[in-house]
Amino acid sequence: MTYTVHIKVMPHKELLDPQGKAVMGGLKNLGLAGVADVRVGKNITLQVNADSPELAKSIAEEASKKLLSNPVMEYFEVAVM
Amino acid sequence: MTYTVHIKVMPHKELLDPQGKAVMGGLKNLGLAGVADVRVGKNITLQVNADSPELAKSIAEEASKKLLSNPVMEYFEVAVM
Repeated sequence: MTYTVHIKVMPHKELLDPQGKAVMGGLKNLGLAGVADVRVGKNITLQVNADSPELAKSIAEEASKKLLSNPVMEYFEVAVM
Repeated sequence: MTYTVHIKVMPHKELLDPQGKAVMGGLKNLGLAGVADVRVGKNITLQVNADSPELAKSIAEEASKKLLSNPVMEYFEVAVM
């Protein structure tokens, strides 16, 4: 069966996020008030062929660890639909 | 009040996603079988100061339209936590 797996990769909360700071500057320049903080990460959607949702999740977690996230700077969350 | 708003920006389903194709090639090289399709987008978390969740959502939608997404190639989804 094919499962849709969503992986969210975000910068660690303790770290500065330069891309988020740049976006916040851009929003201020556009006159959009009220935005106090911005953090920018990646969102990856996989179509995984696996026998069970658990197996699909473990494949996605392995992909996240080995290729999609940098554990020094980012954390990831995996959700199987 | 401060609301946490999640914005998901993904390439349109009809369009080719070169970044996703590159990731799929990388996964194949790592020996991770079973992944049939990959799409890569952005995930943006805003902290918005607003009087109501509806107002926070409309600020985030305006930010998405004006700065965070390219409507020709991407769609976005906004969710207020």
